[in-house]
Amino acid sequence: MKFCSSCGHAIEKLVPADDNRTRSVCTECQTIHYENPRLILGTLSTWQDQILLCRRAIAPRSGFWTLPAGFMEIGESTEAGARRETLEEAGAEVEIHDLFAVFDIPHVEQVHLFFRAAMTSPHLAPGVESLEARLFKPDDIPWDELAFESVRQALRLHLEDRSMGTSRLHRMQLPKMDW
Amino acid sequence: MKFCSSCGHAIEKLVPADDNRTRSVCTECQTIHYENPRLILGTLSTWQDQILLCRRAIAPRSGFWTLPAGFMEIGESTEAGARRETLEEAGAEVEIHDLFAVFDIPHVEQVHLFFRAAMTSPHLAPGVESLEARLFKPDDIPWDELAFESVRQALRLHLEDRSMGTSRLHRMQLPKMDW
Repeated sequence: MKFCSSCGHAIEKLVPADDNRTRSVCTECQTIHYENPRLILGTLSTWQDQILLCRRAIAPRSGFWTLPAGFMEIGESTEAGARRETLEEAGAEVEIHDLFAVFDIPHVEQVHLFFRAAMTSPHLAPGVESLEARLFKPDDIPWDELAFESVRQALRLHLEDRSMGTSRLHRMQLPKMDW
Repeated sequence: MKFCSSCGHAIEKLVPADDNRTRSVCTECQTIHYENPRLILGTLSTWQDQILLCRRAIAPRSGFWTLPAGFMEIGESTEAGARRETLEEAGAEVEIHDLFAVFDIPHVEQVHLFFRAAMTSPHLAPGVESLEARLFKPDDIPWDELAFESVRQALRLHLEDRSMGTSRLHRMQLPKMDW
């Protein structure tokens, strides 16, 4: 942030009174522009024993497989956002069950929430952000072609839950990876 | 948002290509300024059977009681942020247990995450954002002087859990209230 989004004046970086962090402050109109992590919402959607993945058509990690997920929008709930992303990226209608995972990813300034969801039919229709959408049996998951560490962890935890017959909420902080 | 925070040019509101929402777009430097809901992190902290509340020294709802909570900062995890807010607002050191509640509050563009936490001592030292911090026995909770609907719901759910001997994750969308 270099300019004030309220008045267009140049921003200064300083610690406001009664604060302990450097903020983007407009010394012209006095607005303090707080910057905060963003929420990514997605689903671990299944049809029978198969898991829904989408192959990304956009950067970053174009061509790699991901769970349907994206930025939370103003005005929606977390559950509605996860359902919307699944419909937009995979064309899949789902029934959201419970919260499956909360991943803290500080180095990209994001928190990812994934919900367990059941597809209401096996119909798929990839949207503009996906090259394809496909259902994978556990043994066929393309582990070497996954887009993000959060996707790898979510799939790993899902298979672990399935083998143990459990259905827990998973919380993890994810490290910075080389990919 | 009226001006581009990257180049200072006036912003236009339009739907970018391959998007379906109106965004703040800079037609000079082509930056799309996405706006997303913010995360509020807090704790339902207890010492023995007592619950920690803080009386707000700042707007909104100055003078009313709240659970320690505040905006997630860049670079921290959700759990670290909840612990930080509890220390800043109440001076209380806590051990975070599990995730207690996820509240969707679309009309204020926020998602609130509250963690169950145990205070490591009854020591309190209210910070600059609090008039006082105090431990309340269940029967003494100041229901008519609570700051926010999320606080009221969290306290209600905590007492319900306690009476039932359960420890669940609660998820709710909160309606717009008159207060």
